[in-house]
Amino acid sequence: MNGAQTLIRSLAHAGVEVCFGNPGTSEMHFVAALDEVPGMRAALCLFEGVATGAADGYGRMAGRPAATLLHLGPGLGNGLANLHNARRAHTPLVNVVGDHATYHKRLDAPLESDIDAVAGSVSGWLRRATDPGTLARDAVEAVRAATRAPGQVATLVLPADVSWSEAPTGPPPALPPVEVTTAPDATVERAAAALTGGEPAALLVGGAATRGEGLRAAGRIAAASGARLLCETFPARLERGAGVPVVERLAYLAEMATGQLEGLRHLVLAGAASPVSFFAYPGLPGDLVPDGCEVHVLTRGDEDVISALGHLSERVADTRELKAATPTAARPAAPEGDAPLTSEAVAYAVGALLPADTVVVDEANTSGLWLPGATEGAPPHDWLTLTGGAIGQGLPVATGAAVACPGRRVLCLEADGSAMYTLQALWTQAREGLDVTTVVFSNRSYAILEMELRRVGAAAAGPRARDLLDLSRPDLDFVSLARGMGVPAERARTAGEFTAAGRRALAEPGPGLIEAVVPPIG
Amino acid sequence: MNGAQTLIRSLAHAGVEVCFGNPGTSEMHFVAALDEVPGMRAALCLFEGVATGAADGYGRMAGRPAATLLHLGPGLGNGLANLHNARRAHTPLVNVVGDHATYHKRLDAPLESDIDAVAGSVSGWLRRATDPGTLARDAVEAVRAATRAPGQVATLVLPADVSWSEAPTGPPPALPPVEVTTAPDATVERAAAALTGGEPAALLVGGAATRGEGLRAAGRIAAASGARLLCETFPARLERGAGVPVVERLAYLAEMATGQLEGLRHLVLAGAASPVSFFAYPGLPGDLVPDGCEVHVLTRGDEDVISALGHLSERVADTRELKAATPTAARPAAPEGDAPLTSEAVAYAVGALLPADTVVVDEANTSGLWLPGATEGAPPHDWLTLTGGAIGQGLPVATGAAVACPGRRVLCLEADGSAMYTLQALWTQAREGLDVTTVVFSNRSYAILEMELRRVGAAAAGPRARDLLDLSRPDLDFVSLARGMGVPAERARTAGEFTAAGRRALAEPGPGLIEAVVPPIG
Repeated sequence: MNGAQTLIRSLAHAGVEVCFGNPGTSEMHFVAALDEVPGMRAALCLFEGVATGAADGYGRMAGRPAATLLHLGPGLGNGLANLHNARRAHTPLVNVVGDHATYHKRLDAPLESDIDAVAGSVSGWLRRATDPGTLARDAVEAVRAATRAPGQVATLVLPADVSWSEAPTGPPPALPPVEVTTAPDATVERAAAALTGGEPAALLVGGAATRGEGLRAAGRIAAASGARLLCETFPARLERGAGVPVVERLAYLAEMATGQLEGLRHLVLAGAASPVSFFAYPGLPGDLVPDGCEVHVLTRGDEDVISALGHLSERVADTRELKAATPTAARPAAPEGDAPLTSEAVAYAVGALLPADTVVVDEANTSGLWLPGATEGAPPHDWLTLTGGAIGQGLPVATGAAVACPGRRVLCLEADGSAMYTLQALWTQAREGLDVTTVVFSNRSYAILEMELRRVGAAAAGPRARDLLDLSRPDLDFVSLARGMGVPAERARTAGEFTAAGRRALAEPGPGLIEAVVPPIG
Repeated sequence: MNGAQTLIRSLAHAGVEVCFGNPGTSEMHFVAALDEVPGMRAALCLFEGVATGAADGYGRMAGRPAATLLHLGPGLGNGLANLHNARRAHTPLVNVVGDHATYHKRLDAPLESDIDAVAGSVSGWLRRATDPGTLARDAVEAVRAATRAPGQVATLVLPADVSWSEAPTGPPPALPPVEVTTAPDATVERAAAALTGGEPAALLVGGAATRGEGLRAAGRIAAASGARLLCETFPARLERGAGVPVVERLAYLAEMATGQLEGLRHLVLAGAASPVSFFAYPGLPGDLVPDGCEVHVLTRGDEDVISALGHLSERVADTRELKAATPTAARPAAPEGDAPLTSEAVAYAVGALLPADTVVVDEANTSGLWLPGATEGAPPHDWLTLTGGAIGQGLPVATGAAVACPGRRVLCLEADGSAMYTLQALWTQAREGLDVTTVVFSNRSYAILEMELRRVGAAAAGPRARDLLDLSRPDLDFVSLARGMGVPAERARTAGEFTAAGRRALAEPGPGLIEAVVPPIG
C-alpha cells in the first residue's frame, strides 16, 4: 500500500466519499489509487474553480466534507476564489493539493511556487505531508479540522513522493468524535435579557443557524420575545418556504441594511458576524450597527450555535410547542404570453414552478431582486448564496450540491457575467448526469457594476468605462455554450417561453439550461 | 485629479498603454478615470486568468508591460496561474489589484482576504499604495521594477480610498532610464574558454537570448566555437524559421533531455536556468546536468544577457560577419484528401500555410509533437510557449500578443484540455477584432496525463483513474463554444478539411477557430 492508497482509504473511512478534482502529473498516484482502494467517488472538473466550488456545494448540503484534488500552486490558484467563498460559508472541505516530490522542490522546476503562502490565505488548517507513515493520520486530522464548528477549509499538501512511497498497512485511524463546545450559560442569559427586556431587539442568525433545528429555535425565540429575526446577507444555506420560520435577510446595499437595523437597541448574533457594509463608499460608515445598539455575541469561535439557540429558546419561551411565524403556502401565477421577458417574470415563474425540496443556488445578483418575494410561499427549499462575494460560484456549487443530494432538483439562478467565470461546470453536470437546471439571466452587462459605478460616486461613465461593464459586442450565446458542453439548452425571450421552458427543464432528468434574455434592472 | 487618474496618467506616461481587466466595485474609480485621462486602452476580459495571460502575451511581444486590473484577492486568485507563467517567462507586467478602502479592511467584509500573501508568490516587486500623493511615483516604480532585466511581475495593490481621494496635480514623474548591468569580463572569458577549449560544450540560451540580437550572437558563438546551441524547454518567445539561427530546444521529457545533454563537459547558461526535470519520477534524477559537466553562468540576476552574448561572440569569433547555422526556407506540402486528420497532418498544414511574421502561441502539449519539425523552414516567426507549466495560458497569451502586434497574424495551437481553462479569451478576441486563429487539437483526453500515469510508475489505470483523464462523455463541441462567444468556427475531421479551413481562417481578418478532431498520440 502506497501513500496515496492509505490517504484515500483513511479519507473514505472518515466519511469523505467524493473527490472533485483536476489532477496533474504529481497527482497520478492518487488517481491510480482510486481504483485500488474502495470508497471514493471522483468527479472530473475541467477547471479547478469548478472543483473547489463543487466541494463547497457538496459540503453545504452533505454537512461533511468532500475532498478536492488540485495540481500544485497554479491549480490551487485556479481554485482559490471558490475556496474563499467556502471559507466565508464555513463549509467543511478537505483541500488536497499535490506538490512536487520533497527532494525536487529545491530545483525550482517551472511549476514550483509557494503553495503554503497561497493556501494559508483560505485555510483554517494547513499541513504539508512529509511521511507516508503518518499520512493516514494527516487525513483524519484534516477531516476533523474541516468539520470542527463552524466548519472550515483544511488543506493537505501532498508531495508526489509521499504519495508514491510505501506506507504501513493497518486499519485506518478512527475519526475522533467531534467535540461540541457549548456557549456559557451566562452568555445565553444575557442574550435572553437583551431580547426580552422590552427595548427594540433583533436576533441575527447565520452559519448553521439558518436551517433545521437552529432556525426553528430562532423562530420560537422571535415569536416568544417579540424580537425581530434577521439573517446574514449571504447565508451558506438558508432553509425557507411555506411552513419554515420567516427570516428577514439583511440587504446587500448598506443604505437598505442601515434602514433594517435602524432603531435597534440590542442585536444578538447567532452564528453571524456583526453586520458591515460589503464595500466602502466615500463618506458612508462601514460598520452598520446603529449608534446606541448593543451587540451580544451568543457563540464565539467553535461554540455550537444550535445548542445555544436551543438553550436560549428554552429561556425565553415556556414551551417548545410555540409556533414561529412562517409564510403561508402560496405561489404566484406562472407568467404566460408574449410580453418580453423580465427578471421579475422569471422570479414569478420560479415561484410558480419550484419543486418541493429544491436546492436553489442563487448567483443572480441584480437580476435576483424579485426572487425572495416570489418564492417565499413555495414548498420548503434550501437557498445557497454567494457567501464570499467572489463571482463564479453558482454553477460549481450547484454541481456539488447535486452530487450531495441525489433525488433533489437543483436550480441554479445565475447572472451572465458570473456564469462566464466557471461555465465549465456544465460539462461535469452532463458527465455525472446531475439534475441541475440552470437559468442564466442574460442582461448583457455587469449590471451590478453599473449600479456601483454610480454608488461609489465615480464620475458619469464615459465610453471606455461603459465598455468595461458591457457584455454585448458580441452577445454571449448561452445556448451554444451549453450545448458545446453537452447540456441541452433553450432561449426564452417572452414570459410564456420562459414558463414553458422552465416546466420542461424541471421535469427532465439530468442537466439543462435556459438563457433568459432580460433587460438590466434599473 | 483623484488617485486613479494620477495612476493612469503616470502609467501611460511611463509607457503602459494597455490594461487587461475585469474590475469590480473597488476598481470603479479606476474605470471611470479611463475616460478622464488619455493614453490607456482598456480591454475587458470575462475572467481574470484571461487578463493576466493577455498581459503576459502583450509583454512578451511588446517588450514593455501592460497593466492588469483585478478585483481584490479572489480576482487575483483567478489570475494567479497565468501570473505564475508570466513570472517564469520573465515578462514585464504591472499587476494592479484593487482592494477595499484602507479603513474598511479591519471590518473583515466578505471579500476581505490576504492579498499580499497571494501576490507575493508571483511578484518580484509588491507594494500596497497608501497615499494618493505618492501614487504617481508608485506607478513609475512599478513600471521600472517590471522592466528591470530579466523582467518580472510588479504588483501594486490599490485600496479604493487611495483611488478615489484627491491627488496633487503636477506633471507625471519621468521613468528613470533603465540601468543595464553588464556581466564581468572575467565571466565572459571563462565562458569563452569553456566553449573553445576543445571539450564537448553547449551554449544554453533562454529569456531575452532566444530572439533578435541575442539569438544572432548565440548563433555566431556556436558557429565559431563548434559548441552546440541549445534553448530552454519552454522559451517565452523563440524566434525561428528560415534564416534564423537554429537552436535545439531541450526536450520536456527528462529521459530525452538527458540524451541531449549526454557527454557534455561544459554548459554555458545565457539567460536560462540550469536544466532540471519538469517533474520528479521515482528513481530518476531531477538535475539533468550530466556528471562531469561544468556549468558556467554567463549572466546572473539582472545582468544583461544580450550584451554579454555580444561580448562573448566577439571573444570567440574574429568577425561579426560570421554566419550562424540557419534552416533553409522549405515548407512541407499541405496535406489534402480524405484521410482522417492527425496531429501530424495538422503540423504539416501549419508548416505549409504559416504566414510570414506570425506569432505562434503553442499550448498543443502532446499533440504538438510534429510542429517544430514541420515549421522549421517556414518564414521567420515567433514561438511562445507554456513557460510555467500552468495550463490555460495559450488563448489569453494569444489575445495579448495580438493587441501588442496589430498587423501580424497570431496562430494559437491549443490542446483541448488546456483550452477549457480560459476559453473566455475568445470573447475578448471577438470584441477587440483581433487577428487570432485558434486550432484546438481535440483528442478528447488529457493525453499528457495518460503518458505521465505510465511514466510515474503508477499502476495500470483502472476505470476510475481513466475517467479522470478522459474528456469524452460528453464530447466537447468547440465549434459551438466558439460561436457562443462570437468567434466563427468550423470543424475538420480530414487532412483536406483542415488545410482548407486553415487557408480560410488565416486569410480572414478577426478571430476564428478550427476544431481539429485528432486521435491522441501514442
